[in-house]
Amino acid sequence: MRMYDIIAKKRDGGTLSDEEIQFFINGYVKGEIPDYQVSALLMAIYFKGMTDRETASLTMCMANSGETVDLSSIDGIKVDKHSTGGVGDKTTLIISPIVASLGVRVAKMSGRGLGHTGGTVDKMEAVPGMQTSIDREKFFDIVRKVGVSVIGQSGNLVPADKKLYALRDVTATIESIPLIASSIMSKKIAAGSDCILLDVKTGSGAFMKTVDDSIRLAQAMVAIGEHVGRKTIALITDMDRPLGNAIGNSLEIMEVCRTLKGQGPEDLTEICLELAANMLFLAGKGGMQECKKLARRQIDNGEAFAKLKEMVAAQGGDTSVLDDSTKFEQAKVKYDVPALSEGFLYSMNTEQCGIASVELGAGREKKEDSIDFSAGILLRKKIGDYVKRGEVIAEFYSSSLDKCKQAEKLFESAVFIHPEKPEFVPIVHGRVTADGVEKY
Amino acid sequence: MRMYDIIAKKRDGGTLSDEEIQFFINGYVKGEIPDYQVSALLMAIYFKGMTDRETASLTMCMANSGETVDLSSIDGIKVDKHSTGGVGDKTTLIISPIVASLGVRVAKMSGRGLGHTGGTVDKMEAVPGMQTSIDREKFFDIVRKVGVSVIGQSGNLVPADKKLYALRDVTATIESIPLIASSIMSKKIAAGSDCILLDVKTGSGAFMKTVDDSIRLAQAMVAIGEHVGRKTIALITDMDRPLGNAIGNSLEIMEVCRTLKGQGPEDLTEICLELAANMLFLAGKGGMQECKKLARRQIDNGEAFAKLKEMVAAQGGDTSVLDDSTKFEQAKVKYDVPALSEGFLYSMNTEQCGIASVELGAGREKKEDSIDFSAGILLRKKIGDYVKRGEVIAEFYSSSLDKCKQAEKLFESAVFIHPEKPEFVPIVHGRVTADGVEKY
Repeated sequence: MRMYDIIAKKRDGGTLSDEEIQFFINGYVKGEIPDYQVSALLMAIYFKGMTDRETASLTMCMANSGETVDLSSIDGIKVDKHSTGGVGDKTTLIISPIVASLGVRVAKMSGRGLGHTGGTVDKMEAVPGMQTSIDREKFFDIVRKVGVSVIGQSGNLVPADKKLYALRDVTATIESIPLIASSIMSKKIAAGSDCILLDVKTGSGAFMKTVDDSIRLAQAMVAIGEHVGRKTIALITDMDRPLGNAIGNSLEIMEVCRTLKGQGPEDLTEICLELAANMLFLAGKGGMQECKKLARRQIDNGEAFAKLKEMVAAQGGDTSVLDDSTKFEQAKVKYDVPALSEGFLYSMNTEQCGIASVELGAGREKKEDSIDFSAGILLRKKIGDYVKRGEVIAEFYSSSLDKCKQAEKLFESAVFIHPEKPEFVPIVHGRVTADGVEKY
Repeated sequence: MRMYDIIAKKRDGGTLSDEEIQFFINGYVKGEIPDYQVSALLMAIYFKGMTDRETASLTMCMANSGETVDLSSIDGIKVDKHSTGGVGDKTTLIISPIVASLGVRVAKMSGRGLGHTGGTVDKMEAVPGMQTSIDREKFFDIVRKVGVSVIGQSGNLVPADKKLYALRDVTATIESIPLIASSIMSKKIAAGSDCILLDVKTGSGAFMKTVDDSIRLAQAMVAIGEHVGRKTIALITDMDRPLGNAIGNSLEIMEVCRTLKGQGPEDLTEICLELAANMLFLAGKGGMQECKKLARRQIDNGEAFAKLKEMVAAQGGDTSVLDDSTKFEQAKVKYDVPALSEGFLYSMNTEQCGIASVELGAGREKKEDSIDFSAGILLRKKIGDYVKRGEVIAEFYSSSLDKCKQAEKLFESAVFIHPEKPEFVPIVHGRVTADGVEKY
């Protein structure tokens, strides 16, 4: 078998066999196949696509390219959740305690933030003492005892994806549905859960800018799950606005707590109930209506919030900040951002809002950058709200006034105020299962 | 400027600017842009093509990526000729003396053979003493005094093409018209002649298998010539049969001499008159009919053959072998290949015939291989001839009987004998100029 022939076959629109995909992935991971041949193949895949079977085969080869996590020593059904990334997305820390408080096991590895999107691991580290680098056995122990643990990615999981993603990133071959789908699903499969809930974001703050593209990606991932025997559901959710009111690490932890206490923003609460209900549904806890009621109940009765505290404590975190947010380290500077005109808050370029929060210190431009946990944005107005000129639309938190001024320019240009009220956009656009697509 | 953006632009069907093409070529030659980004761009070009302007711009950037040959110190119009390669193609050594004997200057750098195709430089070296590595000044001197010199490629000409071609060769991106056209034309432009005649081969022994593809390639190259101010004409000629009767180095030199003495095979003579006439036409020696008559006359009056001897002498070659072919070193083994059935010689897989000649020792499989100048194939029958079972259709020349037996298998499988007489196929299929395409 020769890599040349595999490239030429895909270039000519052919379907690669399992053996050919295995040859390419194994050879690439071993360093026997050079980057320049792989990037030519990736560009051919960009143009010619992959069948569901090819995509599933690629996903499994990638998943098996390194270590995999075996969760079989943990009783019960393990459900994983993945978000394609957004601004203000703290749902993992809300829904995991909800479902864990109902006996569904969550053994989750999360990522760090980069660019305009934040990462769950960074948010967790805003809690003093919180450990996110935990060895496999202790991680399993916490899941067994508490029912949930969320840690950083560890071990040599899916090295094929690491190499391929880095190459795609510099060769303009990121935007390919089968390549995105196999990248995400290979990591979820290697992480070992029985069921997978995908949160595919759509809109100005998301990788996928349209609902149709998001549905296509969701369908590709659900098809992979079906092919490889992991029950998979995807929700298409809105990222044309920041999720909730808080952007930034400790600000988001405070919002997580408010939401688990039943005092969260409407959009965030709604999406979390929907996500949690689907995780419960995947774990066989009942029909969708029932699961939604269950999720709601766990907020109302305080059990979900108690579960969050239990997990934080098990991972060494100081739970007092969860009860009293004034105990978080406070930002040096608080800065009010006024509306520049009167009218309805009509739209927000969500990626820009994310970048503004990075300017304030809440995120990273490069992997090496460090994070100011107290920095970020608290939105006082959301899309659809009426604002008067000069009224405060957001509070900025940062270490310096300069950073606030810089971020303000970005933020003001991201916000569009208009005399007309914008049409209502649901927070969940649709749901993709093996049975098909439901649009909401 | 970033290579990433250039890849993405071409991937999305955009047109690259001169600056973008220059950035990519210069960066690649300097080693600042890695292979893996270039191969992704090449695959995007494979799918999205290039406009005539982009192709011309790419060609000029490549031509200027290293040394260029300045022929301005040689008086008169300099005409270059390029063949896309074939089996038994010895036309350069026939047409260059024809046109040089009429005052057209030919300062030509030729290549060596690889795979199933031979190379003019190897053929010349079959003449004892013949020098093909000659320094620039002596090369120019011979062109000034004799009117023609053919040498091997020397100097750091078009390093961009060397790097790009090697990369295309392993990434399945050879078969792209703008990339093939710019590769050929960049070398011709760097070689410095005023006018360029292209011989685009078509058929089973050629890179381009159909006349339509060959016309497309010819059009792309003629368009480049127009864009950069070099008068360019392309002939589309047949390579669905070996050209002439001789394949192999000294065998081909003997056939060159026979043809220049007016005793050459019909197909070879016809194509050479057509090629020579077009070179004369490019040099402004008259209309096409007139140029054809002039070329014919130079064979009939012996001046073309005399010019060949003059060039060989000037490059240190022993001209006595040109007058008396028995003075060539003779092959150890001569082997007659019989027809396996009776009927018309209907077709020949020309690439296979070329590979059979390599088996006999006449060519190279790898660059490092050495050549047996006396080895090769002399066809006793050509397409359209009627043969009886057992009648000799070819003579093999080699250093061993084993090689002959090996080559015989390949050759027999390449030859198709059929009860029906094949349709006549002209040796020249058409002509492409800036004014358009004439099909013959």
